[in-house]
Amino acid sequence: MTRVDKEIVAGAPAVAATGKDLARALFAPQAVALVGASADEKKNTARPLRFMRKHGFQGRILPVNAGRSEVMGLAAYPSVAALPEPIDHAFVMVPGAHVAEALAQSAAQGARVVTIFSDGFAELGQAGMAAQQALAEQARALGVRVLGPNSIGVVDIHSGAVLSVNAVLEMDALHAGPVSVVSQSGSMLGALLSRGAARGMGFAKLVSVGNECDIGVGELVDLLVDDAATEVILLFLETIRDAAVLGPALRRARAAGKPVLVYKLGRSAQGEALAQSHTGALAGNDAAVDAFLRQHGAMRVELLETLFEAAPLASRYARTVPALDRAPRVAVVTTTGGGAATVVDRLGLSGVEAVAPPDAFIAHMAARGVKIRQTPIIDLTLAATGAQYRDLVEQMLQGDWCDAVLCVAGSSAQFHPQLAVRPIVEASAVGGKPLLAFLSPEATQSLQVLQDAGVPAFRTPESCADALACLFRAARAGQGAPDAPLPPLAWPAGLPTQGDLSEIEAAAVFAALGVPVAPAALVDPASPAHAVPYPVVAKVCSRDILHKTEIGGVQVGVRDNAELAAAVQRLMANARAHAPAARVDGILVQRMEDRLLELMLGYRLDPLVGPIVVLGAGGITAELHRDVSLRPAPVSLADARQMIDEVRSTRIVRGFRGLPRGDVDALADAIVRFSRLAALDGATVAEAEINPLFVRADGVVGVDCVLRLAD
Amino acid sequence: MTRVDKEIVAGAPAVAATGKDLARALFAPQAVALVGASADEKKNTARPLRFMRKHGFQGRILPVNAGRSEVMGLAAYPSVAALPEPIDHAFVMVPGAHVAEALAQSAAQGARVVTIFSDGFAELGQAGMAAQQALAEQARALGVRVLGPNSIGVVDIHSGAVLSVNAVLEMDALHAGPVSVVSQSGSMLGALLSRGAARGMGFAKLVSVGNECDIGVGELVDLLVDDAATEVILLFLETIRDAAVLGPALRRARAAGKPVLVYKLGRSAQGEALAQSHTGALAGNDAAVDAFLRQHGAMRVELLETLFEAAPLASRYARTVPALDRAPRVAVVTTTGGGAATVVDRLGLSGVEAVAPPDAFIAHMAARGVKIRQTPIIDLTLAATGAQYRDLVEQMLQGDWCDAVLCVAGSSAQFHPQLAVRPIVEASAVGGKPLLAFLSPEATQSLQVLQDAGVPAFRTPESCADALACLFRAARAGQGAPDAPLPPLAWPAGLPTQGDLSEIEAAAVFAALGVPVAPAALVDPASPAHAVPYPVVAKVCSRDILHKTEIGGVQVGVRDNAELAAAVQRLMANARAHAPAARVDGILVQRMEDRLLELMLGYRLDPLVGPIVVLGAGGITAELHRDVSLRPAPVSLADARQMIDEVRSTRIVRGFRGLPRGDVDALADAIVRFSRLAALDGATVAEAEINPLFVRADGVVGVDCVLRLAD
Repeated sequence: MTRVDKEIVAGAPAVAATGKDLARALFAPQAVALVGASADEKKNTARPLRFMRKHGFQGRILPVNAGRSEVMGLAAYPSVAALPEPIDHAFVMVPGAHVAEALAQSAAQGARVVTIFSDGFAELGQAGMAAQQALAEQARALGVRVLGPNSIGVVDIHSGAVLSVNAVLEMDALHAGPVSVVSQSGSMLGALLSRGAARGMGFAKLVSVGNECDIGVGELVDLLVDDAATEVILLFLETIRDAAVLGPALRRARAAGKPVLVYKLGRSAQGEALAQSHTGALAGNDAAVDAFLRQHGAMRVELLETLFEAAPLASRYARTVPALDRAPRVAVVTTTGGGAATVVDRLGLSGVEAVAPPDAFIAHMAARGVKIRQTPIIDLTLAATGAQYRDLVEQMLQGDWCDAVLCVAGSSAQFHPQLAVRPIVEASAVGGKPLLAFLSPEATQSLQVLQDAGVPAFRTPESCADALACLFRAARAGQGAPDAPLPPLAWPAGLPTQGDLSEIEAAAVFAALGVPVAPAALVDPASPAHAVPYPVVAKVCSRDILHKTEIGGVQVGVRDNAELAAAVQRLMANARAHAPAARVDGILVQRMEDRLLELMLGYRLDPLVGPIVVLGAGGITAELHRDVSLRPAPVSLADARQMIDEVRSTRIVRGFRGLPRGDVDALADAIVRFSRLAALDGATVAEAEINPLFVRADGVVGVDCVLRLAD
Repeated sequence: MTRVDKEIVAGAPAVAATGKDLARALFAPQAVALVGASADEKKNTARPLRFMRKHGFQGRILPVNAGRSEVMGLAAYPSVAALPEPIDHAFVMVPGAHVAEALAQSAAQGARVVTIFSDGFAELGQAGMAAQQALAEQARALGVRVLGPNSIGVVDIHSGAVLSVNAVLEMDALHAGPVSVVSQSGSMLGALLSRGAARGMGFAKLVSVGNECDIGVGELVDLLVDDAATEVILLFLETIRDAAVLGPALRRARAAGKPVLVYKLGRSAQGEALAQSHTGALAGNDAAVDAFLRQHGAMRVELLETLFEAAPLASRYARTVPALDRAPRVAVVTTTGGGAATVVDRLGLSGVEAVAPPDAFIAHMAARGVKIRQTPIIDLTLAATGAQYRDLVEQMLQGDWCDAVLCVAGSSAQFHPQLAVRPIVEASAVGGKPLLAFLSPEATQSLQVLQDAGVPAFRTPESCADALACLFRAARAGQGAPDAPLPPLAWPAGLPTQGDLSEIEAAAVFAALGVPVAPAALVDPASPAHAVPYPVVAKVCSRDILHKTEIGGVQVGVRDNAELAAAVQRLMANARAHAPAARVDGILVQRMEDRLLELMLGYRLDPLVGPIVVLGAGGITAELHRDVSLRPAPVSLADARQMIDEVRSTRIVRGFRGLPRGDVDALADAIVRFSRLAALDGATVAEAEINPLFVRADGVVGVDCVLRLAD
């Protein structure tokens, strides 16, 4: 019997569901098996059935319980195989050892997707990883999609499909709305839901991805982009497991005008290490993940509360906020100078400027009967009427001197919500640039009035500043798309396609990409003739000696042939003494280069997000002062310029205290060209570095080159 | 008539009230005049009378209203002078022009303190400043104390003395408790009260200091230290106007076990500039203020919410938390890994370590029937009973492997408050090290249960981490007190006592303090004989040439007498050419010194907080990478060591990648000695700098010295 015959006999596997088919089975199943549903109300495995009834699920529910023929008034079945009708989604809550059987039977009953709550897989480490891989393979063979394992479930608030054990779904009124959440932490999904609900936020879909053995965050974002009920997507991330899917999904979301807000653990080294151990994920670099998210248009927030507080702001304005190549300017109007200052102080830390109104605007408002001063916080006295407040905000929204308008309400917001925030609500009809509010006192009612009117409102100055800074940052980062689709480049002929390259080989690769490297020649130690102009640097050239300086393999300031001959002898002797097994290709003779600044330009394959370019200060400054900037490769020219601005050390060649200027254009061009290491055809670069890269008044030049190929 | 006679005729001024007398009149007056009290309920000047009645003030209230003989049922008087009985406190709400009259009449009626709500003073800039100075002088002459002007008032929640127009005091139940607040922003005082009240926080005294023309934040802290109702003091600051009073008051508070929590604007340059313009305050340096607050034991929080959320933590544990010279270690126990990770990630940013339990503790707990793993977050499964949870926390509180215990509650905290937080409350009876909780979902009831039991509980991961980091930081900073009272040093004989010093004179001052400087001699350009060993550096020595290098006034690497003679000619010619008017004292011949690292050691009089020592990276690194550390002078040895640790660049001489170690002991000693510039008797140093200060393997040496005296 051939393999194909065998499959037919066993029942041909369905084509695994994707896109709309997957979304339908996942979020709007017609018949759901609850595998391991308990009849004991106290057990969490009893929850999904109770939740679905409570929240009005209209599909059929089929409890599977080995010991009972009835669960909460519904007929129950001893196994999935025993179900009397087909299902399209199974929620599996049985112990890990029984998951495989449930999966196979669910597939046989027609399930397109199986959500697995059961744990005991990758989150346990090595042993669990093997079980999880087997599970994933089984699902692939069966043609059934899997959410989880170790997923706390999936919820569609609109349809009442609450396939989850999360206690928070016990809440009486799950308010339906436009916000969907995907979380790598099951318990945080509940925490986010409860916090959002307490603020009156309405939700669409909630998904706990668990260990992501099949359906990952990226695919879910992709499904949600096509979900009519979803307008904004919140992600709680501990790691990234599917960058190749997530990147394009984030771009689709951006194009569709659905902002994606991200809270990701790992801002501190401690948090990063924790996320790995907690999830069994690979060690990545948070800075690389940050650059990846920004590159693809996601808005990574700093504070947990910002994740949902920023949703209305992003939802309303992300589509229209302009990409600025200067600090965003926000006009701030308030009746509480101190309260406004708390936000403005934070905005300053994020590079958002509170802008004073120009003379013309002050005159314009004076003509309309509103007197304001030229200060970065416009402090309206309490004497101003509501109509004047409204008029001021409306005129600001139409002015060309600010990019956003922030209203900070004082104690009147607590006792006279209508009075305090009505002018803001009315002015918001003008539309255009972002309008947002921070309420300085505890003022629940005012928050509600603003929220009902769709005016983004914030409870803490830090969350307010975080959200606004994110909005502008994401708009600007969106400019970082590759300038134009680049054709793949061929790996230079004649160079090795695996292993470590020697310095002159690495330099040849960079040169092929158009990155300037110092003129050099590889000479025979026995007869070191060359055409490189003196003075030169002489270095041992060997793919087996990565740290040449440490073995005495470099001689700088060689002034003529005689000095070179002597240097060659010394270098070869050192190489023989300290690295006797190394294959020495010869002596690299390289022109001595002058410079205004030394930088480091690096490339590596990040285990989470793939190819990354790093620009950093030279020497130990990058490490001591964390003076680096990262971007996913390939890098656009606009992004290369941003990277240069982000590395503080480059200030000394950008007009610092009268010091000579370096060729920043050439540097940006070199970064773009170097980043095309990611587009090489014929070999995969694992790691590359030009260190130092000299910045000069006329161009840049790499003087030390390293390149390691992936196996 | 002499000035003295005139005063006697006008009625001798009382001795101005301080201490208990002032506190009594300020917070517990027996008879209060409400000057400018309105009978129109809608006006804010009608509020104090309404508030005092509502909140049960037992003293006598005397409304002063020029146009009415009755206000809200009380007899009213046309002027303070017309009052039928003496008062001890007047609250003045009349327009600025009438304040002086009200002040004089209040003094004549026996008032010990006058709180001035009226504005139109220093907050308006130069013109208002003059009016305010006149007001302060008038008060001094009258022997009456002033709170304000531009103060929103003073409130004693316990006595119902609500001398304030703040709308937030409209609240029905002002909950009395142990927290007192002093604010430089009137509106933020209300915002803090409303936010605290919404969390059930009880308050004692609330004071808006306004422009601080007389009674300042420092004196109020001092009064609150002696206030039996106050256990913790919160400060909302925009600037510091009375460092000389505030510093000792903060130390008294610390000694009395009353923690002082501070939110201060100015973390960003934008916020700092704003605080100045907003308050009419002097420009200071936020980093200097930060160092000042830390030095005196105040706990400066980062986030606004932390200001009150941290109060219970500080109040309960500030007295007992140990000063650690390593990262604090916190044991984290949770049922929600993701929720706990949000706090741990933030703690990592503040240098607080989540610590995994040691083997012995795991075995200890196993013997007690509780199974835990060796992870930085101890994830108790939901299967653990409440008794087990309690036992685990109790054992942790008694373990010697952690400095604090953090419990992170998951979704059970939302629906089963008793179940979720009861074990924490019970365990808290063990006492000892800090125990605190973060609630991952929205869980108002659980927060209340914890709060009622005195367990510090937090609503956001960021506030929780901020508060815990502050607690440990303040404990450590407390070690920074001067090692022992230092006798004042005499200004070295023979040196100028004003103006700029020449380099050799500045070096002589530093040498007199015991700071090593490079051996040098001042030679006559005509006959440059000296005993300094070659090689040497030759420099033009002139108090009129601060930037010697820029005019060609420095020659390094001079190897013998002949080279020196040539150098002297060149240097003098350059000085004549580029600084013809400069008085040249001669040529400074200084031994060439080698070094492992170049630093900068500076001293200046900060306009807000006084003498400050700055240690920073040498060259432009300090400016590019903000690699500096500040402390008020004089600096203790312990603080000097902390400063060295805080400057990242010093890592390269502290065992970095096998590089040779520098003499860190000598560096710390030099910082301590240099800081005694603040203790010199006979001249006041305005600014001093050793830049560079070389760190060597055996000692440190200053090679360029600048010193400017105050006029």
